Amino acid sequence: MWNIMRTLIMACTLLASLQLRAEDGYRLWLRYDRIDDPALLTQYRSSVTAMVFPAPSPTLLVARNELLDDLGSMLDKKLPIRTTPSDNCILAGTPSSSPVIAQLLSSKYPGLAGDGYVLHSQLVEGKHLIIIAAHSDIGVLYGVFAFLRLLQTHQPIQNISLSSSPLVQRRILDHWDNLTRTVERGYAGASIWNWHLLPDYIDQRYIDYARANASIGINGTVLTNVNANSLVLTPLYLQKVRALADVFRPYGIRVYLTAKFSAPVDIGGLKTADPLDPAVQKWWKDKCDEIYSLIPDFGGFLVKANSEGQPGPQTYGRTHTDGANMFADALAPHGGIVMWRAFVYDVRPQRKNEHFDDNPAHAEGHKAATADAGTSKTPVVDSGAHNIPVSRPSPGEISAPDRFKQAYAEFTPFDGKFRPNVLIQVKNGPIDFQPREPFSPLFGAMSKTPLMMEFQITQEYLGQGTHLVYEAPLFKEVLDADTYANGKGSTVAKIIDGSAFHPGQGSPFTTPTLQPGISPGGQTTADQLAAAPLTGMAGVSNIGNERNWTNHPFGQANWYAFGRLAWDHTLSARQIADEWVKQTFSNNTMVVSAIEKMMMASREAVVNYMTPLGLHHIMSSSGHYGPGPWLNNAPRADWNPVYYHRADAYGIGFDRTATGSNALTQYQPQVRQQWLDSNTCDEKFLLWFHHVSWSHKMKDGHTFWDELCNRYQSGVDTVKWMQRQWKSLAGLIDKERFTQVSMLLNIQEKEAEWWRNACLLYFQTFSRMPIPPGVGHTDQTLEYYKSLRFPYAPGTGISL
Amino acid sequence: MWNIMRTLIMACTLLASLQLRAEDGYRLWLRYDRIDDPALLTQYRSSVTAMVFPAPSPTLLVARNELLDDLGSMLDKKLPIRTTPSDNCILAGTPSSSPVIAQLLSSKYPGLAGDGYVLHSQLVEGKHLIIIAAHSDIGVLYGVFAFLRLLQTHQPIQNISLSSSPLVQRRILDHWDNLTRTVERGYAGASIWNWHLLPDYIDQRYIDYARANASIGINGTVLTNVNANSLVLTPLYLQKVRALADVFRPYGIRVYLTAKFSAPVDIGGLKTADPLDPAVQKWWKDKCDEIYSLIPDFGGFLVKANSEGQPGPQTYGRTHTDGANMFADALAPHGGIVMWRAFVYDVRPQRKNEHFDDNPAHAEGHKAATADAGTSKTPVVDSGAHNIPVSRPSPGEISAPDRFKQAYAEFTPFDGKFRPNVLIQVKNGPIDFQPREPFSPLFGAMSKTPLMMEFQITQEYLGQGTHLVYEAPLFKEVLDADTYANGKGSTVAKIIDGSAFHPGQGSPFTTPTLQPGISPGGQTTADQLAAAPLTGMAGVSNIGNERNWTNHPFGQANWYAFGRLAWDHTLSARQIADEWVKQTFSNNTMVVSAIEKMMMASREAVVNYMTPLGLHHIMSSSGHYGPGPWLNNAPRADWNPVYYHRADAYGIGFDRTATGSNALTQYQPQVRQQWLDSNTCDEKFLLWFHHVSWSHKMKDGHTFWDELCNRYQSGVDTVKWMQRQWKSLAGLIDKERFTQVSMLLNIQEKEAEWWRNACLLYFQTFSRMPIPPGVGHTDQTLEYYKSLRFPYAPGTGISL
Repeated sequence: MWNIMRTLIMACTLLASLQLRAEDGYRLWLRYDRIDDPALLTQYRSSVTAMVFPAPSPTLLVARNELLDDLGSMLDKKLPIRTTPSDNCILAGTPSSSPVIAQLLSSKYPGLAGDGYVLHSQLVEGKHLIIIAAHSDIGVLYGVFAFLRLLQTHQPIQNISLSSSPLVQRRILDHWDNLTRTVERGYAGASIWNWHLLPDYIDQRYIDYARANASIGINGTVLTNVNANSLVLTPLYLQKVRALADVFRPYGIRVYLTAKFSAPVDIGGLKTADPLDPAVQKWWKDKCDEIYSLIPDFGGFLVKANSEGQPGPQTYGRTHTDGANMFADALAPHGGIVMWRAFVYDVRPQRKNEHFDDNPAHAEGHKAATADAGTSKTPVVDSGAHNIPVSRPSPGEISAPDRFKQAYAEFTPFDGKFRPNVLIQVKNGPIDFQPREPFSPLFGAMSKTPLMMEFQITQEYLGQGTHLVYEAPLFKEVLDADTYANGKGSTVAKIIDGSAFHPGQGSPFTTPTLQPGISPGGQTTADQLAAAPLTGMAGVSNIGNERNWTNHPFGQANWYAFGRLAWDHTLSARQIADEWVKQTFSNNTMVVSAIEKMMMASREAVVNYMTPLGLHHIMSSSGHYGPGPWLNNAPRADWNPVYYHRADAYGIGFDRTATGSNALTQYQPQVRQQWLDSNTCDEKFLLWFHHVSWSHKMKDGHTFWDELCNRYQSGVDTVKWMQRQWKSLAGLIDKERFTQVSMLLNIQEKEAEWWRNACLLYFQTFSRMPIPPGVGHTDQTLEYYKSLRFPYAPGTGISL
Repeated sequence: MWNIMRTLIMACTLLASLQLRAEDGYRLWLRYDRIDDPALLTQYRSSVTAMVFPAPSPTLLVARNELLDDLGSMLDKKLPIRTTPSDNCILAGTPSSSPVIAQLLSSKYPGLAGDGYVLHSQLVEGKHLIIIAAHSDIGVLYGVFAFLRLLQTHQPIQNISLSSSPLVQRRILDHWDNLTRTVERGYAGASIWNWHLLPDYIDQRYIDYARANASIGINGTVLTNVNANSLVLTPLYLQKVRALADVFRPYGIRVYLTAKFSAPVDIGGLKTADPLDPAVQKWWKDKCDEIYSLIPDFGGFLVKANSEGQPGPQTYGRTHTDGANMFADALAPHGGIVMWRAFVYDVRPQRKNEHFDDNPAHAEGHKAATADAGTSKTPVVDSGAHNIPVSRPSPGEISAPDRFKQAYAEFTPFDGKFRPNVLIQVKNGPIDFQPREPFSPLFGAMSKTPLMMEFQITQEYLGQGTHLVYEAPLFKEVLDADTYANGKGSTVAKIIDGSAFHPGQGSPFTTPTLQPGISPGGQTTADQLAAAPLTGMAGVSNIGNERNWTNHPFGQANWYAFGRLAWDHTLSARQIADEWVKQTFSNNTMVVSAIEKMMMASREAVVNYMTPLGLHHIMSSSGHYGPGPWLNNAPRADWNPVYYHRADAYGIGFDRTATGSNALTQYQPQVRQQWLDSNTCDEKFLLWFHHVSWSHKMKDGHTFWDELCNRYQSGVDTVKWMQRQWKSLAGLIDKERFTQVSMLLNIQEKEAEWWRNACLLYFQTFSRMPIPPGVGHTDQTLEYYKSLRFPYAPGTGISL
């Protein structure tokens, strides 16, 4: 007997250790391993013994299966499904599936609306029930994942009473994935969309992608790059898109596509794409009809127009409203929306015979140049209004126009003039996803137009595929910033969720989830759109086809954090880190504590070792990989680092006060006031707004130069500290991921030192001041750093 | 007590089922799951209770760990490691590690040499031992994998006495992987070589790649595309190559690189790459010294020269020997070898202003055009000897030169003139990896030069990423073909293993395995090279970074079969299939029997539905994806399908007899005789050698036209039969792979019908004969099939 026992115990241990050995990261935060705390396991098992979970829809079916499978794994026990509740039973569903649920929601959670969910313990007819309830089917799935998360993070489930609702409606991943399967600014292998094998081959990844997204509340995916390819709108590709939409539908995820403005010319046989041309309007209406006949819940279009070489309405002398509203009108009958990007800086080529997309490494836009060379034939009509002369700046010169200001200048005149189903998608900062930016002045400047947040999850400027940088603190810094647009407390988050200008917004909104074969009910949706302004948040995906999705295991945390904040921007960065670590690595308190500290310190570290004190856009032109503050040969002035840092013998920084570009005027007076004076300006934004002398006195008494050096060193020191933290976890984390992160931290250390050395050597040629003690130095010369070349750096759309 | 038992049993079951659920294919044939036959498990457990396995070298250490881990999983039992044998113990090592082993090898296996291994049961001092022995450390690792295979395939291990030795020395995977991570003719995602993150980041895949290769005896890997990029020879990249070499070394795998002939110009600052120029020779010698200082066991170079736009010695008016011997002399002091490809058809551009690499989709060569545009600046010097005028053929015309003949014509004059460390690498057939080709006439035509086989594992012309085609029958058909070069029985295999011309070859040869820090011992290796002519077999890899390595689960079988045949070409295709299925899917006899039948039928199926009866090279130009027999607009005559099938009103086929190109004269008389007469020629090669009339009488009495139609239908029928076979296995195979293969078979069926319909509609425009009854037809028109476009078909080096 004991022999058998011993064998069985050994078998379990061995199987468990095999599982540990096989921890390749594919499962993300959805690991659902057996609860490894015996007391807790016993408790959970006695609290959950069965479930009542009618599943009359595909969404409820996947919700039930998810709950069944994952509880089965975590509790080591297959739960029976009953038709009537027993004691210690889960009851899951909507008001229509259960009077108990109907009663609960109306009595205890009258405020619950839309796709929010309730988790609630209740004694019903003497039986202890755990109720997972929502008004919509997808809300039930969200509730299931929330309940599973409680167990994964070892929370009590005995007396729960909580509800949660999404604060913005459209929570979307933007994939900058090309039809060739290269991914612009992707650092995790190839695109997960295997277009060639669609629609007939459904990769298991598509299903797991949908599960992962649904588990954090993401409800939309833009499948294609903003540097768009018209071919995705041809019948061949729409069948492929449809197949993905069919996979994602039960998980509440709608598909969206990027629409290339020139599609009527590229694939439609028209001579123009002028948005006011009736033939063009008809072409888009017909195209939308075609799409919705295949995909009744198609989400709509994301459009990058008149930016970095992409065609747009200005190509035909028209305005952003002309362009966006044309799409909006074609989509409205079907309930679709337009996400119109405000990332624009498309002016005429600055030198004869040069085109914006000639220098791919500098822009999102290069891939379009490769994939869609045909569009260069689109006639370029100067819009007149945007003819801004730009010359290459000599150091310190500020006569060149400030790209910081362009989105505001182009969009604010059109406030209130977009259709109700248009969202203007605004990058979090005024330039381009830098390690730290002030919030974009557009937030708060368009009270009559819904603005959608665009964050970049993929780490284009944050160490790319190899640096551990937890982005939630960055996201939160932006979301919590006060625009003062409608008085104090008008945070960016409240602009995004609509509550700043529309009290009552920022509360839940049902995204109608359509089932296959059911007509889209366009009228209802259009009515809803009219009733409640759209809200949305987008994150540029960091997902590829590497085994663990993001290559860096901590890249998964940024995907997770984006989803959680899109659902509820009031969550703290630490809280999200805590959840993620427990689900992804372990509930061991040493592990949780050490990793959380690393994560929370990591974003300030990258700011310090790359672009401290308000420096920005000083990375190399070679795929934005590594430092390149000396670069001054790009064809556009504002593709050159020297344009941004403006270092000279006097000092460094971009004067955006009245003596400079005066971009500060785009902010509300209260905001402007915070940053106006170089002596009182928050030092983290100092060089964003001021050209300060090398000997400028900092708040802690150092000269600016010394402070700059210290910050670079501090960034490096934090990375070294992170390495020590991680090492202390040896044996507490599976070997594969432990080794993986160790190697990546070594790369991060090396690259942090590279940034420090290269930047300080370069800036020293202006400051002529010594590196202060305590700051590491290098035996390499500046020329060495300038000589480094990385011809196949990833993420350019050419290399992977 | 019983409660605990029940819980434990349930836990085991659940964990086991979770493992089943997670069968994503990453583990390949190295699954090592618990033996699921209880009686057999008991038997194995009693036969193996401990091991004696001294591990004083890295190779022996990985061998011991592999044995320990995998037996642990299969037997559910951790084996103790002892210093002296106990009863039912494994004893593993070399003669130097154990007198028992020394005695065994000298007394019972005197013929064992090189890297071969012995598995032998023996009673030693009253104890039952299973001995795993070899003369070399790597031989022990091969023995370990062979022993594990016995258990995985449920073979008896009680009274074993077997030995096995490799029949060729260099067993190599050729990766057509670019530094950008695209893979030419790759259909499984991106390159597994993440160059950007090397040398600091070692992907777990690299280790598992080495394990998988070692398990089937592969001992070399060419990391880079034959369309080469000189940058891989720069110090930056050599550090990356070194890191991979360090990972692979314990597994007995040497790294090789492709050398671009123009590297001295591209990266060396020289004005010429003329192989007779002393500065060029010195450059390569210095480069080799540099490489070997980093990688003491570096394997050598693979060179594609003067083919499809690649530069080569003819660029400078020199010969293949001049080029190959220059590399050989630079490598010889270090024991390195040159693999010089015989795939040449590089003549002058056929029309003014056209270059060979202008039409990427037609050639291996296109990627070079993209990545290394710089090389177009290399001066092109006409060699004179290769100035063959080519015009576009009108149907039936045979005046254009026959590419079939070129390799033979270029290489046979140099027989015996290459250095001993040069292998000429010859594709299996005279054209280019077609579904069926006669063997290349070069085999048997160069008795004084070692020829290396080049097979293509990746399915460029065999349905690419989606068709189930087991290639071992193709490999075997070539290897077993008789060249009659040194009398009857001079099979291609015996040319390759050296035994046809050198009796005593074809027996084992030790590949010296170097340990880090140990000097390369160049003299010894060079001496060895002089003593025994080189032998080798190369397979173009089908590996990418998709989760399961090859995308199609059955692609793994072709990787496996190549390795097994490179080790021992006498194995049968069925035997290899049997091993593979048991290791990869199940030992269940229903599963094994059904899958083996599918695999064995699959190659004839693809021949039938693509290119029956000797048709060849009639695929679309768009990435070689799908049928394109009508194509006639490529800039080179021999890139056009019409050049190969020559269909006209009279008939179809390429006359290679005396009335045509007379390529048949390149074979020995006995071979020529087999194929000379269209009435007696083996019908599977008919159109390779004859232009036959549509009403030509076939052996079974049909007209040629009817036979052609029937063959196409037969191919489709076999695919439908494969679908039924697979469906019968529902429930016997894990859900993920079952579904995956089902979807892929559906695609294969659809594409088989596409081939049948498109080809028959097209050929019917010449034959003007009706489709016979029983042959499926289509409602689509020929124009429809001609109109299909797949701009991003994978494998072109542009798309993934």
